[in-house]
Amino acid sequence: MTETKEHTYKLRVYYEDTDAQGVVYYANYLKFIERARTEFLRNIGYQQEKLLNEGLIFVVNGIQMSFRKPAKLDDGLKIKTRLIKLGKASFHFDQEVFSEENFLLCKGLVRCACLDSKSFKPVALPKELLDGMRSIL
Amino acid sequence: MTETKEHTYKLRVYYEDTDAQGVVYYANYLKFIERARTEFLRNIGYQQEKLLNEGLIFVVNGIQMSFRKPAKLDDGLKIKTRLIKLGKASFHFDQEVFSEENFLLCKGLVRCACLDSKSFKPVALPKELLDGMRSIL
Amino acid sequence: MTETKEHTYKLRVYYEDTDAQGVVYYANYLKFIERARTEFLRNIGYQQEKLLNEGLIFVVNGIQMSFRKPAKLDDGLKIKTRLIKLGKASFHFDQEVFSEENFLLCKGLVRCACLDSKSFKPVALPKELLDGMRSIL
Amino acid sequence: MTETKEHTYKLRVYYEDTDAQGVVYYANYLKFIERARTEFLRNIGYQQEKLLNEGLIFVVNGIQMSFRKPAKLDDGLKIKTRLIKLGKASFHFDQEVFSEENFLLCKGLVRCACLDSKSFKPVALPKELLDGMRSIL
Repeated sequence: MTETKEHTYKLRVYYEDTDAQGVVYYANYLKFIERARTEFLRNIGYQQEKLLNEGLIFVVNGIQMSFRKPAKLDDGLKIKTRLIKLGKASFHFDQEVFSEENFLLCKGLVRCACLDSKSFKPVALPKELLDGMRSIL
Repeated sequence: MTETKEHTYKLRVYYEDTDAQGVVYYANYLKFIERARTEFLRNIGYQQEKLLNEGLIFVVNGIQMSFRKPAKLDDGLKIKTRLIKLGKASFHFDQEVFSEENFLLCKGLVRCACLDSKSFKPVALPKELLDGMRSIL
Repeated sequence: MTETKEHTYKLRVYYEDTDAQGVVYYANYLKFIERARTEFLRNIGYQQEKLLNEGLIFVVNGIQMSFRKPAKLDDGLKIKTRLIKLGKASFHFDQEVFSEENFLLCKGLVRCACLDSKSFKPVALPKELLDGMRSIL
Repeated sequence: MTETKEHTYKLRVYYEDTDAQGVVYYANYLKFIERARTEFLRNIGYQQEKLLNEGLIFVVNGIQMSFRKPAKLDDGLKIKTRLIKLGKASFHFDQEVFSEENFLLCKGLVRCACLDSKSFKPVALPKELLDGMRSIL
């Protein structure tokens, strides 16, 4: 049941997101897809603030993005997120940004790691979180 | 009925909004309250993208903000917006940002103007919009 | 000797700073003037990262800004900063943003406080810093 | 003479660039490397504002980034930019972000295209610009 494992997040484009080209500034898609990943993980019972207080952080190690069509002010966007790989201390997401008319605007592969918040060294994902993630892989 | 004239907008704090002090970066409250004003105006039938295409823009002439308590990662915030003054080509908002526990975090007075998008000179608000705004004053 | 007590900081406007109106987005002036305050304080031997590690942070309690003329992509801006008030745990700045042609674009009064980085309670400024600030008041 | 064809841009990390993990937020590296590309192109006589007024824009079609070490508040960063491929309406950059101690923090490949600013369709680079770019390839 692929459908249930894909998470959809919706957002609206505001002036803050656009630039003088009249479209969404490229770096802001990285903000958008992080909001989507955050809500995706909140769904399986994970909260960034809570983990941060426990000394764990998630960081992005690498991204590959392609930008296909521009989004504009007031556009409603839909972000689809899938967990596509899960290791002990790392996990990869596939994320796609669609317009309200279902045009693919932007597509990305995001490689994340779980680190100790002080040393920034890799740490195994807490068991509940690993189990939660397995359930959506 | 003051209640119906006050608009409430909700948002979540993401990593992008925070800084190394562990709290929301002060400039980002200006983004938050603009999102709230945008949705407030959308409610009375106004869309920034549409106006921009008609050659009109809204700009902020001045702000007065006080920052009282910090907001943190993952916090849910509530923004209350009221139109408090309406002129031919200008309008003022009173905006307050609350935590989920209803603590006042930040409070602002925002003075806006309607301008021609090319010349940046003041222009009277379109009649429907002026009427719409009167209804919520 | 007023001249020596006024600090000038220069910056360039990039796409990231602009919005779909083709001008600098209003919240970004708060970023610009914070860069200027940071360099102003660095000049008197103060570094935010160092203080943060000592458990002290500076926060903005309040701002009053007026936005007069827009800045555009590629513009070179000049920010003039003066310390105008100095208390035990608080200090106020007057800041002005000018275009390369010396037009005043934006003007602000910024009220800052020194806080404990954990409790967010007011703390007296460290003596050397207070002395350094007195020298530029 | 590789040295002369590689452009170096320096910047300082401010609070605006950091997040609650205490380090530079990942999306902000995309801002940093765009500042570097902009100055790189300014060096060969190209200005984004001027081109925008002539109806041309540069957009990023795709990026591949790896984030290796975190940068912190007050850090001085150095960005090295090289043009590695040049087509009629497209060009690729290789960009690296270094700490003041010359640690590689982040590395990216950026694919850009030249578009018509209204239609967002690919357009050949203006001849002078193409010649200028050839000189640094």
